[in-house]
Amino acid sequence: MIEEFMRIAIAEAKNAEVYDEVPVGAVIVKDGIVIASAGNMKERENCAIYHAEIVAITKACKVLDNWYLDGCDMYVTLEPCAMCSGAIINSRLDSVYYGASDMKTGCAGSVCNLLENTSFNHQPKVIGGVLADECGGLLSTYFKGKRAIKKANKLQKKMDI
Amino acid sequence: MIEEFMRIAIAEAKNAEVYDEVPVGAVIVKDGIVIASAGNMKERENCAIYHAEIVAITKACKVLDNWYLDGCDMYVTLEPCAMCSGAIINSRLDSVYYGASDMKTGCAGSVCNLLENTSFNHQPKVIGGVLADECGGLLSTYFKGKRAIKKANKLQKKMDI
Repeated sequence: MIEEFMRIAIAEAKNAEVYDEVPVGAVIVKDGIVIASAGNMKERENCAIYHAEIVAITKACKVLDNWYLDGCDMYVTLEPCAMCSGAIINSRLDSVYYGASDMKTGCAGSVCNLLENTSFNHQPKVIGGVLADECGGLLSTYFKGKRAIKKANKLQKKMDI
Repeated sequence: MIEEFMRIAIAEAKNAEVYDEVPVGAVIVKDGIVIASAGNMKERENCAIYHAEIVAITKACKVLDNWYLDGCDMYVTLEPCAMCSGAIINSRLDSVYYGASDMKTGCAGSVCNLLENTSFNHQPKVIGGVLADECGGLLSTYFKGKRAIKKANKLQKKMDI
């Protein structure tokens, strides 16, 4: 079931990309049922709080009418950043399954390891690398496209002059 | 002006306490003007995302119609947790002035130091200890009251039996 849930997160990431968001998706599961799923909404909300994980946690709290998400697992296409790792700890999620690692901002082992820091009062179980190539591929294709557009615009500007 | 802005954050914390929230308040200032202020709303929203800093950042992004809060400073009564430190980094706030330290969850030096971690692509200026006694006093009074109520309830339960 792990890969099946990650595929829903991937679908959320792809849907976010339609709106020119960095393609990241997250899903929250309780008792084998998806209770919340979301894509990154930073650009649409024009606010850096709206990462996929934050939106999914907010939805899950509404569904359960509870801030305490024990018994819940998160599936997210990218290693959570500091903000999202903190949100996962604060919300007491049982487990986090993530896809691609993030060497620039990942806080589940890449830049630092907040999720397994025993100084905090909660440590979720962490499993990385789930469908990592597919999850990471979404991001590299997105950024490759962005760079190509930037290059084309520069060229266009030069030609205009 | 630092203490004046912190006094607004304290007022937000006190207002949050009216709703039985842990009394924490945050203010965001740009060019000497308060553009957003908020108290902790976790209990009211029934979601651990709604710390004062997160609510204030969300409001500031709406006011400026921009996720990029450069030129903005945050004043917050308590040392930010991992989630809020990450949100501050993601939102590119210039400076963070905080009141009381938080030895259990603080990520501006107490448990760890995310805000000054040079591995991330942004480091705000951090100044702790602003009106620390007053900010910390709000929290210790709140938790003292909570413990007294718990004790009284236990006693009441014993008497009922």
